[in-house]
Amino acid sequence: MKTPSSLEELIEALRCLPGIGPKSAQRMAFHLLQRDHPGAQRLGKALEQALSLVRHCERCNNFAEQAVCELCSSPRRDQTLLCVVETPADLLMMEQAQAYHGLYFVLMGRLSPLDGIGPKDIHLDRLVKRALDGVVTETILATNFTVEGEATAHYAGALLSARGMKVTRIARGLPVGGELEHVDSGTLAQAVIERRPA
Amino acid sequence: MKTPSSLEELIEALRCLPGIGPKSAQRMAFHLLQRDHPGAQRLGKALEQALSLVRHCERCNNFAEQAVCELCSSPRRDQTLLCVVETPADLLMMEQAQAYHGLYFVLMGRLSPLDGIGPKDIHLDRLVKRALDGVVTETILATNFTVEGEATAHYAGALLSARGMKVTRIARGLPVGGELEHVDSGTLAQAVIERRPA
Repeated sequence: MKTPSSLEELIEALRCLPGIGPKSAQRMAFHLLQRDHPGAQRLGKALEQALSLVRHCERCNNFAEQAVCELCSSPRRDQTLLCVVETPADLLMMEQAQAYHGLYFVLMGRLSPLDGIGPKDIHLDRLVKRALDGVVTETILATNFTVEGEATAHYAGALLSARGMKVTRIARGLPVGGELEHVDSGTLAQAVIERRPA
Repeated sequence: MKTPSSLEELIEALRCLPGIGPKSAQRMAFHLLQRDHPGAQRLGKALEQALSLVRHCERCNNFAEQAVCELCSSPRRDQTLLCVVETPADLLMMEQAQAYHGLYFVLMGRLSPLDGIGPKDIHLDRLVKRALDGVVTETILATNFTVEGEATAHYAGALLSARGMKVTRIARGLPVGGELEHVDSGTLAQAVIERRPA
C-alpha cells in the first residue's frame, strides 16, 4: 500500500542483478525515479537492444552481434593458437595483458558437478571441433586456478590430447585459488609466457 | 572490438545505478546475457512501466501512481498529524516502526548548499501550504540526525513556527550521525514517542 505497484515491481526486477539485495534494489529504484529518468530510460533501451542483438560467436562462443565476431575474423591474429577461457571477462583480461595474439574459445562457465554444470554445458564438444579444424596447432588452457577451473582444464586437456592436439596450461604464476579477472596484467602476461605442457 | 557495441552500451547504462562501478556493471551485463534473459526482459519492462506510471502524490510528495496516494486518502490515518521525512525509504521505516498513524510529507532530499540543494528543491513551499491546510495541528520533523538533516529540520521548523504551527522533532533516540534507513524499529519507535517541541 505504501509503495506503488509499478515501483514495487521495479524493485523486485532489480534483484535479478547479481549481488543486489532488497535494500540496494530499493535504493536503486528510488534513485532512478527521483534523480535519473534519462539513465533509467537508457538502461531500459540498452537491455532491449542487447537482448535482441547479442548472441554467441559461432567460432569462439564469446558474445557477438555477428555470426563470427570481429576478433575471430581478424587477419592479424595467429590462427594456429587457441586459448580457452571461462568467461568474456577473462578474455578481456588476457587482451589487456597483451602477451597473446592468437584466437580464443570462451567456455561461458566451468565444470561444476555440484551446480549441475557438466561438459555439455560448457560446450566442450564445440571446443574439440573448433580446436581440431586443422589450422590450430596448440591449445592453451587459461581457465582459473580454482578447483573447478583446474578440473575443467584437466578434462578439456584430456579430451584434446587424446585426439593428438598439443595442449598447454598457462603457468601457475597467479596465486593458487586466484581468479583471472582479479589479477594484475603483468602477472597474467608472465603466466602466458611460462605456459607448460599439460 | 572485443565487446559488441550493444553489450558495451548495456555495461555503460548499468553504471547509472548508484554504487555500480565498471567491473560490477560488466559482471551484471554478462550475468544477464548469459544466465538471466527473463530477468533482463522483466527489468526492461519494469523500468518502462515505472517511468510512465510513477509520479509524485499531490499531497505528500511520495511516489504514487494516482494523483493522491493511498496513504493520503486512507480514512484510518490521523489527519491532524503531519510527519516530514527526507525519502520514501524513511517513510517505509516509519511505517515499519508502527508508532505513527498520521500523514506524511516526503521532501525527496535534504538541504545541502554544497550540492546546490536549496529550500525550493526539497519543496518547502509545498510543505508549508500542506501543513497550513487548517486540519493539521502538529508537524513532526523526522529528518535524519545528520548535519544536513538537522539543518533541514531547523529551517523547515522555523518556517512553520513563524506561521503559528506546532512543530515537534522526533527524539534524538537514534545515534547522532545516524540515518533513519539503517536504524532498528524499536529505537525509531522510541524516538517518535519521545518527540520534543522544536
